[in-house]
Amino acid sequence: MPESHARRRAALRVQLRERELDAVLVTDLLNIRYLTGFTGSNAALLVHASDESGAERRTAFCTDGRYLTQAENQVPDLERVIERPCDLALAARAGRDAAHFGRVGFESHKVTVDGLDTLAKAAEGVELVRAPGVVEDLRLVKDDEEVEALRMACAAADRALADLIEHDGLRPGRTEKEVARELDTRMLDHGAAGPSFETIVATGANSAVPHHRPTDAVLRAGDFVKMDFGALVDGYHSDMTRTVVLGPPADWQRELYELVAESQAAGRAALRIGTAFRDVDAAAREVIERAGHGEHFLHGLGHGVGLQIHEAPTLSKAGEGTLFAGMAVTVEPGVYLAGRGGVRIEDTLVVRESGPELLTLTTKDLVVI
Amino acid sequence: MPESHARRRAALRVQLRERELDAVLVTDLLNIRYLTGFTGSNAALLVHASDESGAERRTAFCTDGRYLTQAENQVPDLERVIERPCDLALAARAGRDAAHFGRVGFESHKVTVDGLDTLAKAAEGVELVRAPGVVEDLRLVKDDEEVEALRMACAAADRALADLIEHDGLRPGRTEKEVARELDTRMLDHGAAGPSFETIVATGANSAVPHHRPTDAVLRAGDFVKMDFGALVDGYHSDMTRTVVLGPPADWQRELYELVAESQAAGRAALRIGTAFRDVDAAAREVIERAGHGEHFLHGLGHGVGLQIHEAPTLSKAGEGTLFAGMAVTVEPGVYLAGRGGVRIEDTLVVRESGPELLTLTTKDLVVI
Repeated sequence: MPESHARRRAALRVQLRERELDAVLVTDLLNIRYLTGFTGSNAALLVHASDESGAERRTAFCTDGRYLTQAENQVPDLERVIERPCDLALAARAGRDAAHFGRVGFESHKVTVDGLDTLAKAAEGVELVRAPGVVEDLRLVKDDEEVEALRMACAAADRALADLIEHDGLRPGRTEKEVARELDTRMLDHGAAGPSFETIVATGANSAVPHHRPTDAVLRAGDFVKMDFGALVDGYHSDMTRTVVLGPPADWQRELYELVAESQAAGRAALRIGTAFRDVDAAAREVIERAGHGEHFLHGLGHGVGLQIHEAPTLSKAGEGTLFAGMAVTVEPGVYLAGRGGVRIEDTLVVRESGPELLTLTTKDLVVI
Repeated sequence: MPESHARRRAALRVQLRERELDAVLVTDLLNIRYLTGFTGSNAALLVHASDESGAERRTAFCTDGRYLTQAENQVPDLERVIERPCDLALAARAGRDAAHFGRVGFESHKVTVDGLDTLAKAAEGVELVRAPGVVEDLRLVKDDEEVEALRMACAAADRALADLIEHDGLRPGRTEKEVARELDTRMLDHGAAGPSFETIVATGANSAVPHHRPTDAVLRAGDFVKMDFGALVDGYHSDMTRTVVLGPPADWQRELYELVAESQAAGRAALRIGTAFRDVDAAAREVIERAGHGEHFLHGLGHGVGLQIHEAPTLSKAGEGTLFAGMAVTVEPGVYLAGRGGVRIEDTLVVRESGPELLTLTTKDLVVI
């Protein structure tokens, strides 16, 4: 929607004025997509601080000839420059209008050391100023359109898992790879453009490997089967993990599952505006530590999701910052018993004034196949 | 294969000594995969110039705890550091041993402006020296193991297309999206880990859009159907385009096809050791220009393929350099008639002393469905 992109650029301008920048040269493709809707593989965007939505006279978008038609459709509301390389074309444009482009921010966390050299040459007369994360800061808080895309992505994953189970897709004898592939296909059936990352299916002892890649290992009665997967919809990534058991669970499996579920519930309950990221992690971790499994919870509790599958914030011991309304995050504690099996339970949620809004709706009761 | 990785590191050391570097800190994940076989999402590699294969005492690999087991399996032949962040851990290691790490190269074409700051702080006492492309230079020439992976990737794509056609997958009435999805699935059937990029299926007038994304547009009798797709095998990407016609071709279709096929054959024939990249482009382009369609051939002739779908060299007017034995490239001329249709024919080939070796084996005769 052009309106939402214009609104995001207006929010960016507030940031630019606070940093006393005349403009910012955006070169990260995801940031460009966020600010314009453009989905091609080559582009740059020069956003001027003094422009106003509806009268963006000095703001310009650049892509190359391959994307001429696509740019007309996706970026109808900005001046379009067709040139290659795009970053240098817009840097030169700023250089030619130095009266209005005195101090121009650049994405110093994305632009390479060599890349800055060529930018500086192209933008002669312009002071290039580091502006790391100026767009990512905005992306931390999702607007309604973004949450809607996340909601659809989460729904595609929910439905794929429901279909898989309903069609007996988790029967003993199948391989991890076969199950992963069926999940991927079923997500496509429900509107995903693709999986949002490489689907994890881990059976039996493999479930104790946090980031296991699917193999030809065969599902067997009594196994834990851990599935960590997500769908990509309109550029937004969902992320969900469920662990099921094939046949009646052993006592240790039931206990392990209940422990992780309790930890996950504690993590979700801690998703309150103003809570420190590390305190969310601690709330879930404490439950597992109390049970003596602290050393078997090998990773952070969660991460932001959006145009990237992993983005800010980081919900871990090392995470710095506090929750705001509109942040979309995962909560995914796990306990991994090497050689036996492991459980991870993960949801994608949005932080709201009224408490966390759950986007992944599949049950978290222990599912016995 | 550990031996091939050790051999590649040995070749890298020759480069380091030529550049008078004591070591290089490799942070690009594909370059790390090339040099070690590690496929995880977080790693760094410090290669010391004075080490010898079999006695790599000062060379170290770093990843984080998630990949402990994977690193043991994939990188058994190097000292493994488990720490996070990896680049800083290895930079600090160099800093602690400044007697042996005086001048350390870094990937200045990959390391960001902000990233260099933190590296420099971590590697106090070490002179960090730009070493752009020091690993990519090696990757330009594929070794036998790499060519074998490319060969398998190309075979998976060949077989997928053969299956698609054999099972009547290109019948009128299907949509571009359905055909793309079937191609993707059939590549998986033939051993691909996935498509090597987003599959292009473009029917009728859409075939005139060079980088068309599949839509719900329906295949109709008389259409050109252009399919540009590839498979990913062991991290290596194949790339092939074929254009078929649904039912008896019109005269203009047959002429257009023959023109592009002739151009493509000229491009392939120009793949000789020592030929300038731009001369390969020119050999194919000349055929199309002579026929008056120069302005309808909108892109370069081809590009390198390997661990990336697009990598060096660039076979275009602007390409600088000459062909070496072992380079793997695409040859993909196209002529696009807006509103009517277009033809592109693309192969993946390896430059050899004896002439180009074709890896994509699907026929280039005009296939009439």
